[in-house]
Amino acid sequence: MFEEGRKFLKSNWEVLEHFVSDQKKGIPRPDFEKPVPPGTFLIDLPMVKELGTKTIAQAINDRKSHRKYTNEPLTVEELSFLLWATQGVRNVTERATFRTVPSAGARHPFETYVYIRNVENFEEAIYRYLPLEHKLVLHRKDRYLREEIIRATLDQEFVGSAAAVFIWTVIPYRTEWRYGPASHKAILLDAGHVCQNLYLACEAIGAGTCAIAAYSQELMDKFLLVDGVDEFVVYLAPVGKI
Amino acid sequence: MFEEGRKFLKSNWEVLEHFVSDQKKGIPRPDFEKPVPPGTFLIDLPMVKELGTKTIAQAINDRKSHRKYTNEPLTVEELSFLLWATQGVRNVTERATFRTVPSAGARHPFETYVYIRNVENFEEAIYRYLPLEHKLVLHRKDRYLREEIIRATLDQEFVGSAAAVFIWTVIPYRTEWRYGPASHKAILLDAGHVCQNLYLACEAIGAGTCAIAAYSQELMDKFLLVDGVDEFVVYLAPVGKI
Repeated sequence: MFEEGRKFLKSNWEVLEHFVSDQKKGIPRPDFEKPVPPGTFLIDLPMVKELGTKTIAQAINDRKSHRKYTNEPLTVEELSFLLWATQGVRNVTERATFRTVPSAGARHPFETYVYIRNVENFEEAIYRYLPLEHKLVLHRKDRYLREEIIRATLDQEFVGSAAAVFIWTVIPYRTEWRYGPASHKAILLDAGHVCQNLYLACEAIGAGTCAIAAYSQELMDKFLLVDGVDEFVVYLAPVGKI
Repeated sequence: MFEEGRKFLKSNWEVLEHFVSDQKKGIPRPDFEKPVPPGTFLIDLPMVKELGTKTIAQAINDRKSHRKYTNEPLTVEELSFLLWATQGVRNVTERATFRTVPSAGARHPFETYVYIRNVENFEEAIYRYLPLEHKLVLHRKDRYLREEIIRATLDQEFVGSAAAVFIWTVIPYRTEWRYGPASHKAILLDAGHVCQNLYLACEAIGAGTCAIAAYSQELMDKFLLVDGVDEFVVYLAPVGKI
C-alpha cells in the first residue's frame, strides 16, 4: 500500500550518474528570487539579526505548536527577524546564495509570502519577501483575505487569528536545474528546515506558530496568485503572540 | 517535466475527505518506537536539556554546513543533548508522543540510529535511540562500518571523519495509519524539522553537521539492517567538533 508515496521518500540519487542536468548543459541558472517589475516600491525592513535572550537549548525545549494567539501586534523588528531567520541571505556568489537555513546544493527554491493582519505600521495585505534586498513588496491587497485563507486551509479558523501567516511557495526549477529527478524529496526536506527555524525564532520573541501541511492546493495558489505549475504553495505557518 | 515529482510537493489533503484511515477503522495505533527484545541491555544517557550559552538568534546566524571536523570526541553529555534536541519525548499520552520537534498529527515516524566513531566511553558501533526511555541500544557492531558508510553515501569521504553520524529511518505506517495517502509529503517536511534542530543544537556545543540526502538507498538500508519496505533510511547527518 502507498507504494508510490513510499518510493518518493527514498533516495534516487544514483540516477544522477546518467542524467545531464540543465546546469551541466550550460543553461544559465534560474534567478535566486522572483524578480519584481522595475519601479516597484520596495518596503524597507530594519536588519534585525539578534532578538531575545533564550538559549538555543531553551528554545528547543520550549517549542511547541501554538494555535491560540493574543491580539498583540508583531513589531516590524520582530517580523524582520522572522524573515531573516527563515530565508535571510548571508552571502551571495555568482552561483548560489547562502542563507540562515541549508538547502540541497544551495538552490533555495522557495519564495516567502507573508499575509500580514496585525503587524505595526503595515496595512493588511499579502507581501513578498525579497531575501537578496531584505525588503518586502506589496503582493496583493483585498478585502476578504482573512476569509480566503481560512477556506484555503480547509476551515482551520485559527489561521485567521494570526498576526502574520508565512506561506512558502516553491519554484521547483531552481532545484531541478541542478538535481533533476532527485530534486523533489530534497525540496520538502529543505522546507522543513525553514519552518523549524520559524518555530525557534518565534521562541525568541514570545510568539508561537503551527506548521500547516493540510490545505487546498488550488485555493492557496489562488490566494497568492501563483500559477500552480512553475510556482505553487508548499507549506505555511501562522504566527502570533502567545 | 518532472510532473510526478512536482505533484508530490503539492497538498492532496482533500483526498482524506473520502478516505477511511486505519485509525478511523479502529486499528490499534502503531508503536511509538520500534520495540527491543526483552532482556536487551539498555545504555543509560544523562538527561541533558541545557548546553551552551548561544542565543537562538546567534545559533541561527552562525549555522552553516560543516564537512570538516577535528578529532576531538563528543562527550556523552553532548551526544545525549543532540538526541534530546532532535527526537526527545517531552510528553506521552495514550494516543501520541510530543517531542522537541513537531510532526504531522504528532505521529513521529522516525527512528534515530547513530553510528558512533568518536564519543567518550562508547565503542565504535551503530546504536539506536529509544526516545521514550532516553536510552541507547547497541544495534550493530562490525569492523568495516566506516568504509561501509562512506560507500553508502556515494563516496562522500568526510562522512567517515565525523564523531557520530545521525541516521534517520522512517517507519511510514506510523503516519499512514492516520493520514494514508497524505502522509508522504508530511513525512519529509517532518524530517527537515528534525535535522534543523540538529544543526542548531550543534551550534550550542561547538560542533557542526551537514545534512545528506545523496546516498544509496540500498547500501544505507543494509548498513542499518533495515528491510527497505516498512523501515528505511530517509536522511542523515554527520556530526563532529569544528
